Amino acid sequence: MKRISALLLLLTSLTFTPSHAQQAIWDKAATTSPEINADGTVTFRLVAPCAKEVEITGDFLPTEKVMTPKGEITVRKKAYMERNDAGTWEYTTPFAVEPELYLYNFIVDSLKINDPSNAYRIRDTASSYNIFMTPGERTSLYRVADVPHGSVSKVWYPSATTGTSRRMTVYTPAGYEAPENAGKRYPVLYLLHGMGGDENAWNELGRASQILDNLIAAGKAEPMIVVMPNGNIAMDAAPGENSQGFTIPTTALPHTMDGAYEKAFPEIVTFTDSIYRTVPEKNSRAIAGLSMGGFHSLHTSKLYPDLFGYIGLFSAAIKPRALTYPEVYDDMAAKLKAQFINQPELYWIAIGDTDFLYNDNVAFRKQLDDLGLPYTYRESSGGHCWANWRLYLSEFLPLLFKP
Amino acid sequence: MKRISALLLLLTSLTFTPSHAQQAIWDKAATTSPEINADGTVTFRLVAPCAKEVEITGDFLPTEKVMTPKGEITVRKKAYMERNDAGTWEYTTPFAVEPELYLYNFIVDSLKINDPSNAYRIRDTASSYNIFMTPGERTSLYRVADVPHGSVSKVWYPSATTGTSRRMTVYTPAGYEAPENAGKRYPVLYLLHGMGGDENAWNELGRASQILDNLIAAGKAEPMIVVMPNGNIAMDAAPGENSQGFTIPTTALPHTMDGAYEKAFPEIVTFTDSIYRTVPEKNSRAIAGLSMGGFHSLHTSKLYPDLFGYIGLFSAAIKPRALTYPEVYDDMAAKLKAQFINQPELYWIAIGDTDFLYNDNVAFRKQLDDLGLPYTYRESSGGHCWANWRLYLSEFLPLLFKP
Repeated sequence: MKRISALLLLLTSLTFTPSHAQQAIWDKAATTSPEINADGTVTFRLVAPCAKEVEITGDFLPTEKVMTPKGEITVRKKAYMERNDAGTWEYTTPFAVEPELYLYNFIVDSLKINDPSNAYRIRDTASSYNIFMTPGERTSLYRVADVPHGSVSKVWYPSATTGTSRRMTVYTPAGYEAPENAGKRYPVLYLLHGMGGDENAWNELGRASQILDNLIAAGKAEPMIVVMPNGNIAMDAAPGENSQGFTIPTTALPHTMDGAYEKAFPEIVTFTDSIYRTVPEKNSRAIAGLSMGGFHSLHTSKLYPDLFGYIGLFSAAIKPRALTYPEVYDDMAAKLKAQFINQPELYWIAIGDTDFLYNDNVAFRKQLDDLGLPYTYRESSGGHCWANWRLYLSEFLPLLFKP
Repeated sequence: MKRISALLLLLTSLTFTPSHAQQAIWDKAATTSPEINADGTVTFRLVAPCAKEVEITGDFLPTEKVMTPKGEITVRKKAYMERNDAGTWEYTTPFAVEPELYLYNFIVDSLKINDPSNAYRIRDTASSYNIFMTPGERTSLYRVADVPHGSVSKVWYPSATTGTSRRMTVYTPAGYEAPENAGKRYPVLYLLHGMGGDENAWNELGRASQILDNLIAAGKAEPMIVVMPNGNIAMDAAPGENSQGFTIPTTALPHTMDGAYEKAFPEIVTFTDSIYRTVPEKNSRAIAGLSMGGFHSLHTSKLYPDLFGYIGLFSAAIKPRALTYPEVYDDMAAKLKAQFINQPELYWIAIGDTDFLYNDNVAFRKQLDDLGLPYTYRESSGGHCWANWRLYLSEFLPLLFKP
């Protein structure tokens, strides 16, 4: 009885106390949002009695073509939310939402905000989005399932190029640390992010560790180490987790796509081989990336033709942004030919049919064709987006390191 | 020239494309917020031309006493922001803000939102706060400095108690993975979170890895492994990173502070000793935690009196919330006496003078005094908040594992 009184007293003091006076205490959400309905539609809600107009924008909504002075462009539709008498705004999709991980925001009287009822947010460069996931076959790979889980580590490597420590994310497969596997060695995939991303991106928006856990557990991918370095050579780690403190994240970084990172890439491989139980051989190494990371994969793999046996270009940029180290990009045809003298096990190019880099990829494939260099091509629907990059990773992993 | 045209084209298409149509592209913040001024004041800004009233709330603002039907309570003051002609709202603190890591939100026409100009946010249970840090001696420990960095890993351990895998965060000090240290063994601190927290809390709001890196680099703390498990036994990992998907985070979890977690704690120690190069001895093991984590440290260390040589209670809860396993809490005096037969190297109790658990801690210290059991006491100003918990960790670490 005495214990129960003490408990009630504790709970009472928690309830009375504003969240900032006593931390680790929480605000209760005023409503449920989003709610995934049994028929596959999704309902969003916002309690905002004083608002005049509330819209929702997100990548679950269709796009439309709009004319501008500079020509026709594709924009994402917004939807208006409807206010009920109590001041809660609501929107239900008029369609069942396809299985996927989506991003969204509310716009309240022209101010873009996060959904305060949804604790799950993702930072992408300087923007913050709420996220939600709809169930289905595709997204079953993106969930934390009841399978053995790999470890995910943030590790700093010494960079002779920058003279600093730089951070990378490393996935080691389930069982890697187990004493009975102490003598086992693993192949390595180097998995690279895009512009605006960092060493966290593939594991957060990309769901890399979930996809790896689930494919490996199903016997569809080989157990492997996955190294996700930071491709922004002017940063030592992700924004907010680096020595620059809480500075505003930006894509306007120096030395991006100028050759510096590709040139320095072997120091990442050397460090990985020194710290992890890798198979330090070309055909036990893959490199792949999205957008700028596809660009880095393309140029690094041809600059060091004996390093990687598997190459994956996901919605890859092809052309450099600057030329601090022109030797990285010069003589593209000669470098590609040299890379293909010892034919890679796999050279995999994937892009969406509405991607803004589509034509660059057509031209790059034509160059490979003209040189007689073989590759595998995967064209999906859609554009330059995480839905495609998660899909490409899910399809690429099973092609790697087959015994 | 051709390269420059291609680059311009790329940048142009990025600029024209709404963020959701082409992802990994970002919104530019409409203003700078927060801005830490040279005189130590801080300015916050929000572009919201349609808003009628904008307030700011955060733990950098003072508290005040307010009378309610249930008695006097302490609430955090809010401040009104002022609108300029262009529709930007602004607030500058009328005081220099003490060096600390702070949380804040805006309230726009009664809707609590995050600052859209500040990408840095922390989830605490279901709430999302913006964060900022002011410079000074205390916060120099909380920054990513130019010192060797430890690794931070998310690792899953098999729990015989729950029949599932459960996740923990593990800090290994700089050099742990280096081949030249392959034979070196390290002491272990088990560092426990509070109610509403999870295995991410100490490393996010607690800045544990920065504090450890900086103290170890300065020679003020011994290199050690720090294991931060998830103390919510009904969960396998943090919200959004566990098998329950994106469910609403809550503190109303079953089996919290009911004895289940304390009873099962040795399986965490056994796993840690099997996977890491630990010194598997009482005087090379510490256990400490905040609030519920202090409670877990208190009750686990006396339930297993031979396991931990160092104990730290930071703003600790003392009394259980439920009694599924009463044997964990029964005979408190006898268990404490048994624990102190082999005197712990350190029994450290810290609390703030306005903490709502202050009186419980007075009573607990009186119990220890009456039993003649020695402890070290540290009383700080302030309440139940992360500012104190970071401070306590910074003071506790140098006391551990002295050779």
